[in-house]
Amino acid sequence: MIRFKNARIMTMAGEKPFEVKEGEVWTDKDRIALVGAPSQEELSAAEFEREVDAKGNLIMPSFKNAHTHSAMTFLRSYADDLPLQDWLFNKVFPLEAKLTGEDVYYFAKLANLEYLTSGITASFDMYFELDDYVKACTEMGFRSVLCGAVSGDESNSERLEGNYLKYNGLDPLITFRLGFHAEYTCDIKLLERIGALAEKYKAPVSTHNSETAKEVRECVEKYGKTPTELFESLGIYNYGGAGFHCVHMSDNDLDIFKKRGVWAVHNPGSNSKLASGIADIKKMQDKGIGLALGTDGPASNNALDMFREMYLMSGLSKLKENDAAACDANSVLYAATVGGARAMGLNDCDTLEAGKQADLIMIDLYQPNMQPFNNIGKNIVYSGSKANVILTMCAGKVLYEKGEFLTADAFEIYEGAQERAKRIQESVNG
Amino acid sequence: MIRFKNARIMTMAGEKPFEVKEGEVWTDKDRIALVGAPSQEELSAAEFEREVDAKGNLIMPSFKNAHTHSAMTFLRSYADDLPLQDWLFNKVFPLEAKLTGEDVYYFAKLANLEYLTSGITASFDMYFELDDYVKACTEMGFRSVLCGAVSGDESNSERLEGNYLKYNGLDPLITFRLGFHAEYTCDIKLLERIGALAEKYKAPVSTHNSETAKEVRECVEKYGKTPTELFESLGIYNYGGAGFHCVHMSDNDLDIFKKRGVWAVHNPGSNSKLASGIADIKKMQDKGIGLALGTDGPASNNALDMFREMYLMSGLSKLKENDAAACDANSVLYAATVGGARAMGLNDCDTLEAGKQADLIMIDLYQPNMQPFNNIGKNIVYSGSKANVILTMCAGKVLYEKGEFLTADAFEIYEGAQERAKRIQESVNG
Repeated sequence: MIRFKNARIMTMAGEKPFEVKEGEVWTDKDRIALVGAPSQEELSAAEFEREVDAKGNLIMPSFKNAHTHSAMTFLRSYADDLPLQDWLFNKVFPLEAKLTGEDVYYFAKLANLEYLTSGITASFDMYFELDDYVKACTEMGFRSVLCGAVSGDESNSERLEGNYLKYNGLDPLITFRLGFHAEYTCDIKLLERIGALAEKYKAPVSTHNSETAKEVRECVEKYGKTPTELFESLGIYNYGGAGFHCVHMSDNDLDIFKKRGVWAVHNPGSNSKLASGIADIKKMQDKGIGLALGTDGPASNNALDMFREMYLMSGLSKLKENDAAACDANSVLYAATVGGARAMGLNDCDTLEAGKQADLIMIDLYQPNMQPFNNIGKNIVYSGSKANVILTMCAGKVLYEKGEFLTADAFEIYEGAQERAKRIQESVNG
Repeated sequence: MIRFKNARIMTMAGEKPFEVKEGEVWTDKDRIALVGAPSQEELSAAEFEREVDAKGNLIMPSFKNAHTHSAMTFLRSYADDLPLQDWLFNKVFPLEAKLTGEDVYYFAKLANLEYLTSGITASFDMYFELDDYVKACTEMGFRSVLCGAVSGDESNSERLEGNYLKYNGLDPLITFRLGFHAEYTCDIKLLERIGALAEKYKAPVSTHNSETAKEVRECVEKYGKTPTELFESLGIYNYGGAGFHCVHMSDNDLDIFKKRGVWAVHNPGSNSKLASGIADIKKMQDKGIGLALGTDGPASNNALDMFREMYLMSGLSKLKENDAAACDANSVLYAATVGGARAMGLNDCDTLEAGKQADLIMIDLYQPNMQPFNNIGKNIVYSGSKANVILTMCAGKVLYEKGEFLTADAFEIYEGAQERAKRIQESVNG
């Protein structure tokens, strides 16, 4: 058991505004054992392998990165400030074609290191070389939900189903959700098969959805339906799921999301850097659609930093609504923690309550940006930074503490990633 | 003399893209003595009080916060997510009325601590209780340019002139620029007197300018001119200056800025949080108008973090232009360093060149977010964080290093600020 004492605690349970109370958090193996004020009996009975004096710092649930392509770290700032199509087809794809499984292993570990510095303990990742990717996570004790990434013709549905069966149950830190890349990269027959898989397993399906105006326009031209309407017509969303981006959604699209309980995963950093647009967060909130936050990949952000996404979620919504009261900080905190966990199906990793998974972070309140304590929760969103994250715990294991990585050799990963990124670039550019 | 060796160096001198080269940086008292590769003779002759092995980390000019109201830290997250007018008149003003000089001293020190964590070594600050504010800066070795903050009737021009003469030449770290709050808080006769002062001293004048559509609309209703046109007609900009915000500028306004060499200080965090709008950065760049970056006050951001402003400058411009290639990272780096320095009149604090002031920072490249090194400069803008700032030096003195403040007792300041914020709030709310 691990004991955190003298802490401020924000459990994220209950309704807004999320209360901050003082007390202790105890963890027992991978679970939370106690939150609050322990009784004398409980204290006498407990045996702790470690005691942490939080010294008044805040303990809260960790952040959940509900959309990313972790291994794209090798492309970070490789080709910024280019128009989207040029970037994708001339820069990204030729290099991705050169990736080996071992490359993905290094590049994903690099991303996981970065997640930990930002208080993220779980990612909803869509990429390839899954065995190597899974190893990169489990070796570090990092939690990940793999999202199906198939595209192309209908034969790929077999691979999707195979992965769904293989990667679920493999490791307590790993789950696999049915999914596919996007409407515009999949044959209609593949999409039909995916709808059938959703029915077969009564399982949610997740995918890129309405990221750009072009995507939506071309889908309507092709099918007479928006991507969401198309997915709905094929039963893809019958058991819920998540839509990544949701920047260009019609009222009808949102009604479908509401009806099916589909989560909208908001990626404001990526949407800014790639000039995709500003999602209509207010409308989604008004309709009661569940919201989560994602960083997207590190080549279209380029940080993997939940503090950036949180600030942007609120700031961009305020700009879009021309209203300083839009998208309050509490709804942002919820999306970054509970919302993300639920969107990823990590329902026991969402709040700090006894019995839940011990996925938590410690926020240093004694740095200038968090002072004074007028409103701790709002400080996290409006003035917080990953510099405030001083402890990151996943499934009861401390993975990161005060700048140190406890389950990975950071410099070995930097070197390995650097060499491999260079090799790949040279093989394409000469 | 202080010697930084084994460094990567980005001097910010020369044209874009800003070259990163390897070498050494030497400082001698408050100035830079050498940048690059020292000769054998130079090495033999030099006597260092300290040698720092940069271990491949980046040394670059520090960031210059070209618009802020530092002492407003006491209002941080006091009243977020409210419409602007409600916030200002019901929350901010009643509390500001209770401020004493000693309060401002503590609150400004708190802001200065935060600036240092973000690699900012100079602020262009507009507030009151100037003696206490100046003390808060000079005691910490922090550089500040005070901006005239007058409003109201014409008699206040005497105070402005008095301050201009008093605070310039007071201390090498402090300068004072003629300025006033905004068009909408000043009588026309005061504005006329300010135009006369600009002429008398052949000096630049700085002010809030076109932050909201309402401001511009009401100015046009009142005077038949935009704020910029009004200032131009009164000779206020005849010797240049800076406009803070510049969100709602006409083409004619921008032509005036170009003609007079007025700097546009962009505050994207504040403009987002208060839903003021997105400044037309592209148009300003196309017209060759000088750009700088500012955090604005900590009650309308709420961080004092240049990394946030840098990312937003690019991201919001890309969104506004619907173009992923808009506002490239290099122009952002320039605005955050050289642009800010020049807008503030700190022309010898802008680049890393021998003879310039030793205002510099060290950026830790061996954190996950800066890996791999595809493009170091772009990494700073797109994936950088204040967590990467591991050394902040102002006028040749190291003020902040690896989380430690060398010229201030952070906890004493936190306590003092916390008590005083509480006292002020209770005196208003009961």
